[in-house]
This record gives sequence, structure tokens and C-alpha cells, in this order.
Amino acid sequence: VCDPEQILVVHGSQQAIDLVVRTFVDEGDPVVIEEPHYTGFSFCLEAAGAQIIEVPTDEHGMQVECLAEVPWAKLVCVTPAHQFPSGGVLSLDRRIALLEWARERGAFVLEDDYDGEFRYESRPLESLCSLDTSGRVLYAGTASKLLFPALRLGWLVAPEPVGLVLRDLEAITDTGSASIEQLVLADFIAQGHLERHVRRARVRHAARREALLEAVAGEFGDRARVVGTGAGIHVVLRFDQLSARYVGRLRGACRARDVGVYPVAPYYTNPPKHAELLLGYAALDEAEIKEGIARLRDAYDSLRG
Amino acid sequence: VCDPEQILVVHGSQQAIDLVVRTFVDEGDPVVIEEPHYTGFSFCLEAAGAQIIEVPTDEHGMQVECLAEVPWAKLVCVTPAHQFPSGGVLSLDRRIALLEWARERGAFVLEDDYDGEFRYESRPLESLCSLDTSGRVLYAGTASKLLFPALRLGWLVAPEPVGLVLRDLEAITDTGSASIEQLVLADFIAQGHLERHVRRARVRHAARREALLEAVAGEFGDRARVVGTGAGIHVVLRFDQLSARYVGRLRGACRARDVGVYPVAPYYTNPPKHAELLLGYAALDEAEIKEGIARLRDAYDSLRG
Repeated sequence: VCDPEQILVVHGSQQAIDLVVRTFVDEGDPVVIEEPHYTGFSFCLEAAGAQIIEVPTDEHGMQVECLAEVPWAKLVCVTPAHQFPSGGVLSLDRRIALLEWARERGAFVLEDDYDGEFRYESRPLESLCSLDTSGRVLYAGTASKLLFPALRLGWLVAPEPVGLVLRDLEAITDTGSASIEQLVLADFIAQGHLERHVRRARVRHAARREALLEAVAGEFGDRARVVGTGAGIHVVLRFDQLSARYVGRLRGACRARDVGVYPVAPYYTNPPKHAELLLGYAALDEAEIKEGIARLRDAYDSLRG
Repeated sequence: VCDPEQILVVHGSQQAIDLVVRTFVDEGDPVVIEEPHYTGFSFCLEAAGAQIIEVPTDEHGMQVECLAEVPWAKLVCVTPAHQFPSGGVLSLDRRIALLEWARERGAFVLEDDYDGEFRYESRPLESLCSLDTSGRVLYAGTASKLLFPALRLGWLVAPEPVGLVLRDLEAITDTGSASIEQLVLADFIAQGHLERHVRRARVRHAARREALLEAVAGEFGDRARVVGTGAGIHVVLRFDQLSARYVGRLRGACRARDVGVYPVAPYYTNPPKHAELLLGYAALDEAEIKEGIARLRDAYDSLRG
């Protein structure tokens, strides 16, 4: 729930991040990000000369208790709905603790809700933005996962005074987003199509997710774990018994079998010792997923040969 | 003429300006702009903390000879095809002198060709970008005047090494422009529609420009001069006998007669003492222009009452 004046229409999450970083972060300012993290945060913060502070994550998202050791930060960049890339959903306790820390220390929070519309295991938690009572949260959403990334539309919801500054910045940045897409999306929402689309997509994604979980369990047994399955349209596959050093060869073996898989390591400042892959499943049907995981297993087995 | 790798598709001139300023301009860097100037330059440069140096303009655009007194600048922001807002076309001598100065001093030039497709009085001069032999010009073009601003598409042509940096910056800024518009525009160009459109629009604009010049001469005689008529889709109306102090009242009197006119003063750091209005004529037909200028004369006369 927000006033229309609080909403800035942007070209997707990345522009939301860039506008917020440009508005808040001066050279040397401490900024908290998650580890692992979306590189859209870290690249932008490095360009701004921020002092980046990484807070570890687990299956419940950012380990907010670690903030106790951080005296102050200008900004905390967080993906509560579905930690990117590791997939944890930030627990309600942590949400409240994070907001409390931000209020006490005078920090702002950038909540990147890039795929929060798709949840499978539990009922939606309130966004940080909804829980916030002291005007410290900037909420970024995007049509990229919801509809398609080529649309280049997203939204940033900011507390009133911050919103005005962001609007001025947007004016010198690019004067705004394309009108045609905005008008079409507005009609799409107003006529109820978006809601129907999300419902349909959630059912379709859930079936694909289920197929993926089944296929991984069937092919890999206890040699691989799937994490981050609670929400979104990607999961992380952890090979606890395979060294990170083999990821390149594993990807090559997959490529030779016409399967594209992505490493998680680039999203870490300090990557783990075991191998991890990021698997997006929204664009493949159940049969393709089953076949892809069978080939991935074949590729995995070839490493042992 | 350039390589595809040199082209960055942007959301219009403003993003081109912002990307170039972010890439080149650090706090305190001297940057040359025209006086008067497009505020899209000055706002962006102020935000970057640039030391802004203004060079005066006349009917042939930027008075490049004044650069002799400028020891160095990181960047020169210029509108050679149709100086914004005063409308002069930068002469070939000045173009060559500007490039020579930039090469000698190690400055870069941002050429904002926002409406250069529409010329009426002389044959097109070569762009700075075409004349440049030492890789110092960044050329920005836009579909905003050529087609329509809501399209949010423009292009930035940069020398090779600079282009790579700009591309990285665009990646953290917003990851690029909407694909649908780009694909449609690419087809529109490839199928010859853009060329036909520009030809048709130039004929239509020329007739409207003619109607405007006739109407102003008829209504105002020697009480007003029209300047900047050589190109583009706007002109400046100079009232040498009317003090700048009356512009607000003149606009109010126009508004009361359902005519919208814009002051030129906001585009100056040091506005002139006489009154000036900016008149865009591309969106009005000849009859509307004639009627509008008649009402403007009526509004002007009412100030004397």
C-alpha cells in the first residue's frame, strides 16, 4: 500500500538499484550486501566507491544477527522474498530485526523483490516495505520475471522525501520509461490480466519446479541438494561431494550434451569449496527438465571417468 | 560511418548525456557548455560536480574562438546541427577549429544532434563525428524529434575504447533499452520507412516554418525577430524592444488566449535583458500557427495597454 507519488516507474530492477545507489551512496560510504549477492548490486556499489560489507546468508536469507557487528551503513541491499542467488526466504523475525537495526542506526534498506510473486511452500510474508513504519525502505519490483525482461519496466517505491530526490535524478538520467509499454501494462493490470497471468504462471512454474526436484532426486540421490526452492523461478544445485574446481569441466560436459548450466560462484566474493549450479526452470517444460537433468547427471558421471 | 560496435542504443539524448558525463566527468573537472544551453547538460554536470565553463553562442552556434582562453576541459558539450535553444548552425570553420582545439588539449567532445535531420536553408554540414580523425567525438542522436519522444530510443556513437567503458556503465545503469521498440525501429529503417518519413516530415515542417515566419513578420514587423530558423523544429522569437521582465506577463496573457509559449531564459545562466520565447512549430498546422501568432500579437499588445 502506497501513494502514487511514491512510485517511480523504472527500466527494471537494475535502474532502481542504480538510482538508489546514486542518490544515497557517496565514495567511502559503508553499504551492506548479502553474500552471495546479485552482482547488479556489487558492480553498481563498486562504481560508486562504496565500502562494501558482506553479510552471510543461509536458508532463511540474510543472517541479520550479523548486523550487530556493523556500526553503521548508509544502505542495506537485500532480497528478502527469494535471496539471490541462494534462494532463502527471509524469516519474519529477521525482517523485523533488520528494520529495527535500520531504524536504530539510521540506515536505509533497498528491498529488491525481483521474483517474489512466485511462492510455493508457504504463504507470502509481508514485504519489508509493508512492515516498515519509519520510512527507511525503498522497494524495487520488476516486470522482468513477472512478464518478460525485454519489456524493461520496473517500479521503485520510496518514502515521500526520498521519492522527490529520486524523481529529480531520473529526470537527468533518462527522463523516464517508454509510454507505450507503460500504457499497455496499466491496461493489462486494470483489466485483471496480470492477476490471472500470475496465477496461471504460478501453477505452471510449480509443476516445473516439482519436475525438477523429482528429476534431481531420481538422478542424483544424495549426491546433490536443491536449495532455494521456496519461491522464484530458479534454484541452486549443491554438489557437496564435488570440488568447485570441477565446475568448469562440468559445464563443458553439459555444453557437449546441449545443456546450459550457470555457475553460482560469480555471485560470491568468497565462493564455497563445493560445486554449485544455478538452474532456472521457468522456460522449460517438464519433459525438457527431466531430459536436461538426465544429461546433467551423465555429464556429472563423465567427470568421474 | 561507424562500426556497429561503436553504437550504444540508449533511451534518448538524456541518457547519452548522462552516460558520457558519468564516464568522463569527476568532481571538479572543467567542462565546456554553450550559453544558452540545454539544461539536460547543465543539470547532469552540476550533479557530477563539474566546473562548468560557458562559451557564448551567436547565429553560427558556439563561438569556438573563445575556447582559446580555456586551458583545458575534460569535455565540450555542443549542439552543432541546431544550437539549443538559440538555433544557430555551427559553421564548418568552427567545427574544424573545435576539433583542433579538442585534439590539442586532449578534450573530448559530446555532439548532441537532437534534431539535425531537419534542415531548410543550406545543405547539411558534416557532423563533428564525421570530421573527427582523432577519436575525440561522442555523437548522440535521438528518435524523439525524428519520430516521437515516448519511444525513448536514441543512440550514442563512441570511439572504440570509450565505447567499451560506456557499455559496461550501461550494464549497471539499466541493462539496456526495450527490445520491442528496437526491433520495430530496425525494421522501420531497413524497409526504408524512416527515410521516407524524414522526407515527408521535412516538407511538412518546412511549410509550417514558412507559415510561422510569415505570420511573425505580418503580425510583429520589426518588433520581433525570429532566429534559429536554419534547422530543427523550433525557433526563438526575440523581442528586442521588450524587457525580459515582461515575459511572465506575456506568457500569462498568452495563456488567457489559449496559447502556450515557453521562455528561453531558463536555458541561460545569464539571461539577456530583452524578452525571448521558444516556439516549437512541428505539431501545429499552418492555420493553427497563423491563429496562434495572431493571438500572441494580441497578448503582446495587451502589455502596452
